[in-house]
Amino acid sequence: MPRSDVTTLPVALDTRAYDIHIASRLIDAPAAYAGAIAGRHVLIVTNETVAPLYQARVMATLAEAHEVDTLVLPDGEATKSMATLDIITTRLLENRCGRDATIVALGGGVIGDLAGFAAAIYQRGIDFVQVPTTLLAQVDSSVGGKTGVNHPLGKNMIGAFHQPRRVLADIDVLDTLPAREFSAGMAEVIKYGLIRDPAFFDWLEANMPAIMARDPACIVEVIRRSCANKTEVVVADEREAGERALLNLGHTYGHALEAELGYGVWLHGEAVAAGMCMAADTSRRLGWLDDAQVARIEAVIAAAGLPIIPPPEVSAARIHDLMYRDKKMSAGALRLVLLKDIGHAVLERDYGATLAATLERYLAA
Amino acid sequence: MPRSDVTTLPVALDTRAYDIHIASRLIDAPAAYAGAIAGRHVLIVTNETVAPLYQARVMATLAEAHEVDTLVLPDGEATKSMATLDIITTRLLENRCGRDATIVALGGGVIGDLAGFAAAIYQRGIDFVQVPTTLLAQVDSSVGGKTGVNHPLGKNMIGAFHQPRRVLADIDVLDTLPAREFSAGMAEVIKYGLIRDPAFFDWLEANMPAIMARDPACIVEVIRRSCANKTEVVVADEREAGERALLNLGHTYGHALEAELGYGVWLHGEAVAAGMCMAADTSRRLGWLDDAQVARIEAVIAAAGLPIIPPPEVSAARIHDLMYRDKKMSAGALRLVLLKDIGHAVLERDYGATLAATLERYLAA
Repeated sequence: MPRSDVTTLPVALDTRAYDIHIASRLIDAPAAYAGAIAGRHVLIVTNETVAPLYQARVMATLAEAHEVDTLVLPDGEATKSMATLDIITTRLLENRCGRDATIVALGGGVIGDLAGFAAAIYQRGIDFVQVPTTLLAQVDSSVGGKTGVNHPLGKNMIGAFHQPRRVLADIDVLDTLPAREFSAGMAEVIKYGLIRDPAFFDWLEANMPAIMARDPACIVEVIRRSCANKTEVVVADEREAGERALLNLGHTYGHALEAELGYGVWLHGEAVAAGMCMAADTSRRLGWLDDAQVARIEAVIAAAGLPIIPPPEVSAARIHDLMYRDKKMSAGALRLVLLKDIGHAVLERDYGATLAATLERYLAA
Repeated sequence: MPRSDVTTLPVALDTRAYDIHIASRLIDAPAAYAGAIAGRHVLIVTNETVAPLYQARVMATLAEAHEVDTLVLPDGEATKSMATLDIITTRLLENRCGRDATIVALGGGVIGDLAGFAAAIYQRGIDFVQVPTTLLAQVDSSVGGKTGVNHPLGKNMIGAFHQPRRVLADIDVLDTLPAREFSAGMAEVIKYGLIRDPAFFDWLEANMPAIMARDPACIVEVIRRSCANKTEVVVADEREAGERALLNLGHTYGHALEAELGYGVWLHGEAVAAGMCMAADTSRRLGWLDDAQVARIEAVIAAAGLPIIPPPEVSAARIHDLMYRDKKMSAGALRLVLLKDIGHAVLERDYGATLAATLERYLAA
């Protein structure tokens, strides 16, 4: 029985459909979980940062109808490992959880990817409910079913597609999110406008001050429209060919920046933000965007508290090399996601010398 | 281009269809792999027993068109672990394998489960081709998509459903299979006749001498008809509810025997064989089978070189306890797969005192 003030977005995948609920005061509303948890056993997987803030409330809410245990993991990317996966599955077995157990992933992207993957492989697949506690996780990890862990030789190299049973995007939890992380999440939000939703881009441009002031109605709309856009992309392309690649706007540039700066120096969203500006510049050099459009893109990104240029000490040659190393290991030239227009991204390999010109403009010789 | 002497069985699952090829001289026929390996990179995963026999032939066949590496693992159930999984994924990454790489699982059930699971989770899923080298793997692991590894707290507790791209059941590789393992595979073959294919049971009864003499045409028919039966069950019930449970005929009794005797003392197929006789006895006590039918079942099982009774020292009370512990950890009474007739299995919980009577007949006080 959804509350009238809960925005519900159905994600209608072929095999497993689920709903994203977006509202205030979701995480301790029993109704939010109703119908999403089939069995008796629940394991909440969370981290040391989120647990003191929200774990007790989720636990108390679920304990009315379920046998609930909580696993609190260290915060940070290093937790996304096979070793941590083993900790989760061991706890499930120690608790004698069967196939009707449910994992509740309470945290950001690391917790969602890790706990989702544990759910994917425990007894060949059990249910999980995602309770994302960062804006990035709410707009990005809520849709697509990608779960997994890192390998010492590569990020996200081990994983599975596994859809959650439900996603609860509680906008109140963003109150405890640092401003810098909120902005990083906004990079992915702006991305949806740029790649496929020009009206959403216009709306973001008009409403950025209210969004940055965390106006609740605006935040709900930010999450809903981002998830709706990602859902359309993923439903059309569940196994990641074609359109899904467009979700990587700014990411090829951004991954190279992250790697060169050292992971964690810039947040992923910050690197993507600067990367999107660079992709816009390359698109301008191809004659697809004009100067005014590039200026609008930069202005929206800057208004979200995000960087529009990389740090000046990074060298163009290094970023060029890293971009080519970043490409998927299968054969073929480096393809870039570029913009034919605001709201119209394409995957392009015939960008000639424009990439080099962009790197020279933005980076040190 | 299939050879005219290759029996091909299509496994038409919703999401991923594939073929089982059954014939002599398959493993070194380039045509057997044609169309099943998309990319350049191939990793053969095999074990120390199988490698000296067949690895070079498979490698030479594939090396004509692919970049082939081989990973040789220790033989035995202990290899089916997360630690070995890590060895496989590390090798794939060291070889810079992308999403178009293919794993070839060359071995029995352990190799198939392990290599199939590695394929399921490497970069969220790559292709694998199964080349089963035991009769059990050819008739049992070829269909169903179950992959996985053991956890110290339970067998097959970590895994995924992942369908192979093709299965190559080369009957010649059975020439090097010890007689005891061949018989163990026959237990699962007889099971298909008992649970759903009375004509196949009649055929097995009539042809058991030729089968045990490894007559090639009979072996092809044994594999084809077993896989066809399992395919029908799995297609109807891909996510393992309902009919798929009937595949466990004899297994609840058998698992308890294996556990009590110590894993590896009896082969799985041997325990299942005695378990099927006990299930037949319970069914007789319910009035579903008559004495003559039970005698036919025992005769076929014995003719396949399999035990029809457990070792005399095993106690009825221990087996009873272990059977109840074996049941899936979700709520509910212990349900047994029993026989309404030869070729007609049912899942039954209302067997009353007949189970205890069977255990008392077959086991020590």
